[in-house]
Amino acid sequence: MPADPTRVVADLLELRSLTSAEVDGGIPQTVGGEPSSAPPLGSARLAWTEPWVQAREWFASTFDGVPVETHVDPAGNLWTTLVGARPERIVLGSHLDSVPNGGWLDGCLGVLAGAEVLRGLHRDGVELPVSISVVDWADEEGARFGRSLFGSGAVSGTLDVEAVRGLVDNAGELLGDVVARHGVELDTILTAGDVLPSIVASAELHIEQGPMLEAAGLRLAALHGILGVERRMVRVKGQACHAGATPIPMRRDPTVAASRMALAVRDLGLEHDAFTTVGVWRVHPSVPTAVNGRTEFSVDMRHLSRDTLDALVAGLDELVARIAREENVEATVDVLWSIDPIEFHPDLVQFAADVVEERSGVRHVMPSGPMHDSAEMSRAGVPTVMMFTPSLGGLSHTHIEDTATADLELAVTAFDDLVRRMIGWAADRLAAEAAT
Amino acid sequence: MPADPTRVVADLLELRSLTSAEVDGGIPQTVGGEPSSAPPLGSARLAWTEPWVQAREWFASTFDGVPVETHVDPAGNLWTTLVGARPERIVLGSHLDSVPNGGWLDGCLGVLAGAEVLRGLHRDGVELPVSISVVDWADEEGARFGRSLFGSGAVSGTLDVEAVRGLVDNAGELLGDVVARHGVELDTILTAGDVLPSIVASAELHIEQGPMLEAAGLRLAALHGILGVERRMVRVKGQACHAGATPIPMRRDPTVAASRMALAVRDLGLEHDAFTTVGVWRVHPSVPTAVNGRTEFSVDMRHLSRDTLDALVAGLDELVARIAREENVEATVDVLWSIDPIEFHPDLVQFAADVVEERSGVRHVMPSGPMHDSAEMSRAGVPTVMMFTPSLGGLSHTHIEDTATADLELAVTAFDDLVRRMIGWAADRLAAEAAT
Repeated sequence: MPADPTRVVADLLELRSLTSAEVDGGIPQTVGGEPSSAPPLGSARLAWTEPWVQAREWFASTFDGVPVETHVDPAGNLWTTLVGARPERIVLGSHLDSVPNGGWLDGCLGVLAGAEVLRGLHRDGVELPVSISVVDWADEEGARFGRSLFGSGAVSGTLDVEAVRGLVDNAGELLGDVVARHGVELDTILTAGDVLPSIVASAELHIEQGPMLEAAGLRLAALHGILGVERRMVRVKGQACHAGATPIPMRRDPTVAASRMALAVRDLGLEHDAFTTVGVWRVHPSVPTAVNGRTEFSVDMRHLSRDTLDALVAGLDELVARIAREENVEATVDVLWSIDPIEFHPDLVQFAADVVEERSGVRHVMPSGPMHDSAEMSRAGVPTVMMFTPSLGGLSHTHIEDTATADLELAVTAFDDLVRRMIGWAADRLAAEAAT
Repeated sequence: MPADPTRVVADLLELRSLTSAEVDGGIPQTVGGEPSSAPPLGSARLAWTEPWVQAREWFASTFDGVPVETHVDPAGNLWTTLVGARPERIVLGSHLDSVPNGGWLDGCLGVLAGAEVLRGLHRDGVELPVSISVVDWADEEGARFGRSLFGSGAVSGTLDVEAVRGLVDNAGELLGDVVARHGVELDTILTAGDVLPSIVASAELHIEQGPMLEAAGLRLAALHGILGVERRMVRVKGQACHAGATPIPMRRDPTVAASRMALAVRDLGLEHDAFTTVGVWRVHPSVPTAVNGRTEFSVDMRHLSRDTLDALVAGLDELVARIAREENVEATVDVLWSIDPIEFHPDLVQFAADVVEERSGVRHVMPSGPMHDSAEMSRAGVPTVMMFTPSLGGLSHTHIEDTATADLELAVTAFDDLVRRMIGWAADRLAAEAAT
């Protein structure tokens, strides 16, 4: 029997009850789209904490009877491998860690679906030409130390060890000290990347964490990539003055200027069909009786096209300079983060699109806005693809995150289809490589 | 010899050197509009602190040889009285206290000019039909506990004793404990108002704290009142979501809505020739990767006309509701503070306008946007008037606050003229009252 989707939903619920905490004053939950009678439960699987360790121990127990090899690599990633004819492997990876008071699906769905796909292959006695590894990437969320994609970034080599060494959590503990208690030494962490040459392909199933599938009435999507991100901090300097003494036409008000910029940032996003977001917003001195002297705000811009990202960057620079000039204030634009768009492997995107069409009736292919561990796989040169199942209300990173049970089950079945197609493709690819 | 304006400027400089602290990394100062070679000095006369007490002790010493009566009232106000034929008095009041790192003129100018007017009347042997009291109102700034116009408010009766009892400063000290160390008991503080029936009129000279006089090339102004204030907190609630997962058209972004509201608030002010200011601005969760769920901002609206204030209040309610509807967010408008406009006494305004015209060549009459102790006098029914001298660059509440020496001297001379005219007016008024 192929992957059993009802088993995956049951596993997700079991993990939720084992590693969640009651959310004080939380909104009543739905589970699988149905009202839940349980008290509001928020996931407590913050990386490098006891509930996270418990989640992994429980996860290991779900392979009872399946001859898997298990190990934790130097970056703390948990590998569970069903060995095939060749050591080269397909990676089915996502993450068991959660943000505080998180949902029951973000990350876990991909790991538990991968595990069931693996069990199904064993149950069916499929002769595997390659190996299959389910990977629970360590600390995808970065919710404790602020560095997302920690474990997968160590494997891909993008993790800047010196930059993370000094990170502290809210309790003042050093990242280096905390991960060491879990067997991870920063000095040797990048040796986790030694596994890379053995990875032939990678696939990840994840919840959308946005509202687009639900809004379009779609139940499943193949992903063709992950949006690139250009993140900036705009700092506007005007002149603080008394709210009752300086007439409006004589002011140099950085908050008014920033308000105009924020609206222009939205227009810029609409013009380029991109995501543009003003998130952080700080004013000084922030008192009711004074025009502010300074205002600063972050701008997050995302798109799948490098050219469009460049146009967004230029557009932001232009609108900030123009409005600053018109409002007689000074403004600077500082780079916070810049990451190129990621394109998944065309063969794998086609497989994913095929199974999405076969299982849901609609061939829907879209990019991901949020980052995922698959970005690190792709960046490391591994042929990669992802699939999305809808998020009810577009919500994630909250205890009310949910997806209809029927959609979860459809996604597991389609993901199983995808992996089975990838096995033959991977074997062919290895054979072709050997022939050259 | 009438009031000697050079003495007032010298006194201001002496007080500055006695009760200021060096401002670390402060901008180089000018004094009287000329570059100052002294290190940047910020006034340190925070109410109820040692430098403030020192300022008052020094102030008392400046009457050496003048037969004044001095006492501190139950609210901590310092009264220095030159007794005339009748006990009824004209009050020349302002404040010696300052904000932290404040300027050398805000408040002190009015107190020290009043003192020199008083000394001049004594020097000239003017036979006073009424008494003249120079008052240093206690804690005008409210910089330590957040309650402005403390001493003058106790005299007028607007001070809410129960509301201030629980106020704490940044060190966690209770207002009640702190003022008790200066002989002020909250239980009896309102008896300071017993002085009211003896006050015939009140006058205050102050710096503008805004840019209008300088911008118009004016050197002096009479004030006909103080703007009323309507202060609100606008709270906007949308839906937090991932910056890369929810397309702009599907968002309910409270920060974008608030930006539109802030611009509409400016337009509202321009439309009514009023002061409208967005000062406080807070967003949540304020991270670069999420659309905010909540944004709130303060709106301060000022005008001399009650009708216009009502129109501003209605206009704010309308624009908040309209934009909230258009942006699909929820918004509430909460009252923070509401104070009616204050009109000074027409006779006294005419006197002030006359001396302004005679001394500066231009009859300029304007309202004050900032609040002053004179507002409390006026609210208590005392015929009141004020005069303004320009603020260079419109700056105040900073160590670089300054006014050209020639303008300071002109203001002292004009204020002396004003007080001398008020003496006869006050005597006539008392005589008329006695006759009825």
